[in-house]
Amino acid sequence: MNAPDGPGTRLDPWFDSYAARAHAMRASEIRALFSVANRPEVVSLAGGMPYIGGLPLEEIAEMTRRLVLEQGEVALQYGSGQGDEGLREHITQVMALEGISAHPDDVVVTTGSQQALDLVTKIFIDPGDVVVAEAPSYVGALGVFRAQEADVVHVAMDADGLVPEALEATLGRLRSEGRRVKFLYTVPNYHNPGGVSLSLERRPRILEICQRYGVLVLEDNPYGLLGFDREPVPALRSMSEEGVIYLGSFSKTFAPGYRVGWAVAPHAVREKLVLASEAAILCPSNASQFAIKAYLDHADWQGQIKKFREQYRERRDAMISALEEHIPEASWNVPDGGFYVWVKLPPGLNAKSMLPRAVTERVAYVPGTAFYYDGQGADHMRLSYCYPTPERIKEGVRRLSTVVDAELETVRIFGTDEGAGGDTVEFPSPDIA
Amino acid sequence: MNAPDGPGTRLDPWFDSYAARAHAMRASEIRALFSVANRPEVVSLAGGMPYIGGLPLEEIAEMTRRLVLEQGEVALQYGSGQGDEGLREHITQVMALEGISAHPDDVVVTTGSQQALDLVTKIFIDPGDVVVAEAPSYVGALGVFRAQEADVVHVAMDADGLVPEALEATLGRLRSEGRRVKFLYTVPNYHNPGGVSLSLERRPRILEICQRYGVLVLEDNPYGLLGFDREPVPALRSMSEEGVIYLGSFSKTFAPGYRVGWAVAPHAVREKLVLASEAAILCPSNASQFAIKAYLDHADWQGQIKKFREQYRERRDAMISALEEHIPEASWNVPDGGFYVWVKLPPGLNAKSMLPRAVTERVAYVPGTAFYYDGQGADHMRLSYCYPTPERIKEGVRRLSTVVDAELETVRIFGTDEGAGGDTVEFPSPDIA
Repeated sequence: MNAPDGPGTRLDPWFDSYAARAHAMRASEIRALFSVANRPEVVSLAGGMPYIGGLPLEEIAEMTRRLVLEQGEVALQYGSGQGDEGLREHITQVMALEGISAHPDDVVVTTGSQQALDLVTKIFIDPGDVVVAEAPSYVGALGVFRAQEADVVHVAMDADGLVPEALEATLGRLRSEGRRVKFLYTVPNYHNPGGVSLSLERRPRILEICQRYGVLVLEDNPYGLLGFDREPVPALRSMSEEGVIYLGSFSKTFAPGYRVGWAVAPHAVREKLVLASEAAILCPSNASQFAIKAYLDHADWQGQIKKFREQYRERRDAMISALEEHIPEASWNVPDGGFYVWVKLPPGLNAKSMLPRAVTERVAYVPGTAFYYDGQGADHMRLSYCYPTPERIKEGVRRLSTVVDAELETVRIFGTDEGAGGDTVEFPSPDIA
Repeated sequence: MNAPDGPGTRLDPWFDSYAARAHAMRASEIRALFSVANRPEVVSLAGGMPYIGGLPLEEIAEMTRRLVLEQGEVALQYGSGQGDEGLREHITQVMALEGISAHPDDVVVTTGSQQALDLVTKIFIDPGDVVVAEAPSYVGALGVFRAQEADVVHVAMDADGLVPEALEATLGRLRSEGRRVKFLYTVPNYHNPGGVSLSLERRPRILEICQRYGVLVLEDNPYGLLGFDREPVPALRSMSEEGVIYLGSFSKTFAPGYRVGWAVAPHAVREKLVLASEAAILCPSNASQFAIKAYLDHADWQGQIKKFREQYRERRDAMISALEEHIPEASWNVPDGGFYVWVKLPPGLNAKSMLPRAVTERVAYVPGTAFYYDGQGADHMRLSYCYPTPERIKEGVRRLSTVVDAELETVRIFGTDEGAGGDTVEFPSPDIA
């Protein structure tokens, strides 16, 4: 297995050297989309990029200047593997808004909450172990689970989030099959992509079921403070300290460009997380952590979150009214927070095979298949309203409607597209437009 | 295996849930030291923190302000998984200083080169696979290899770096044993902790041997531009595009607080690296990448590297003259670049067991055992001269000498410490003081 040495070859001389897990790594549908969706003529309803234009950039610029000038010798240096203690203190205050009582020692700062997902998976998953997750579930988490060769088993959601009875049935079945279930991965607030939230009433029930089955809960909560019409619901972590690993992020409440997220974990797990993080990156960026500390110290960050909520509510309204006007054949839920509308296409349409035609019409979305481990979801698509302006959202949905109309015409003439829709587990749309 | 739910317990309810690799994660000796060495009264000759005080902080502060103000909507947003294209273009220019000809498409930006190490290991290492590395080798790399359950086999170095004959003998032996050797991990310039560099003459020989055995070369080069008395030597990557993965970093030539490093890899491997990085962190920090772009665009970064070289040379001189004055019983190499002096203790002394006594005397170092996979190295210690001032370095070595003297006295009275020194593979010290 000598490696040819020279430029220009597109063959892979190292193919035989890869680890087993590397063969499972494949490009996500979101990744391929990003390159397309970045073209200015395309209205992207695909990505989950927050609306950074709403930030007070002048104020942030001046803060950043001051922190380099006054604290540069620390801010530009290596830091602690667990993350800056001052920032961890701030993070406990942010989490208190969702009822969480934690000590800064419990917090591990990570390179976005994505890194926390990766570390937790690395610590708990041997190849073939099971992760239980909502149906559908966040595509970036599924990518991490796949990279570590986990098996993901989906559990039904409804308008009140994960269904406790379905969770219990699934855990019972998996136990009887002798499968090793390591954790439940859940996005309890303003679900990505489902848009729904786990009701307060169900939260202790979900925790009780997981505790009974010895299954850890991995609570991923990037959107919890971005509700439109109600106060934050207490986090699962606020109800169980030993049974939950909680993941938070500044990417949606402040800015993703710093890549700062965090994990809160039971003590022994937290120690493993720090070790795994040190192996992965030595330490998170001090420059980023200090920028976020300065923002939390000096800016009206809670006022800014309120502004974000209003901006996103306006965009959600634009998207829902455009859907009502242009694609009444579809159905969807009306999210009351977060970034996403989960749209069910009319019978016979396939979101995955329709995507290239949509891009030709200069609009992009994420097909539902990206949010399942098992190829389900072709009858759904995720539309994001976080980034484009209301006008662009309306124009994007209008373009999408021309694609849907043409597809419906094709279905009327030639019959149903193979592989579309079908008898898959369905995520009901609670608020039909 | 129900998990007890409640605060305060120090038992680990999730012990049975960990992945196999998590049981192998343990605190590095460097980690434990960092918390001690951070106390202001301790002279730390332990860490590899660069001398950030030498940077033009006012200029950097103003640049940072301008970039948030003028490019904030991009700099604070999510970016590309592979890294910012403009920064990748800059990186190719930095690498050209060491003879590397690469296209920006070949570069993957990572969260420090530590993340690149982690990603390469993730892609190539199945449990039990072998990594061949210098004896001694970088502690942070050993931590990554351990976390992925690799086995590390050390190969001898001498004053000209890795010994080709020793490499060939080791690869031959491993092949005859049926072991799967995935890559050679090497720090060819100003080795950490060895301080030596791989001679120009040996570089093609090392590459030829690895090619013949089908073994990839992982070239880790954070210090290549930090030579005191000579121009950079052509990188291994400049001599082989398909056989080498090259890792670079801005942590030592600019500032580690941004956590920006990179990998250059053969095309197919590069694609896997991007996928693995997206699973791990989604994308590297735009804020950090834009700060580095601004610095490379507007600051005299090559002039700054020249200043760093002069500062580090002065500190090396301070350390060597202090060693000559205070610890003449030891032996060491005189590095002509980088951050480290690798010191062999007088016979009978054990750097690991001596460390607590050194810390009591308010001086810290890293015992040689940290740099071996197999417990060797107790007769050596690594002294870093990068961070403390020349005066502090002299004081640190003086304190160290009192510990060494007391240990020698103990050995004279009670005999050799069990487990010290011995017949381990020895890394000769080419320039005995």
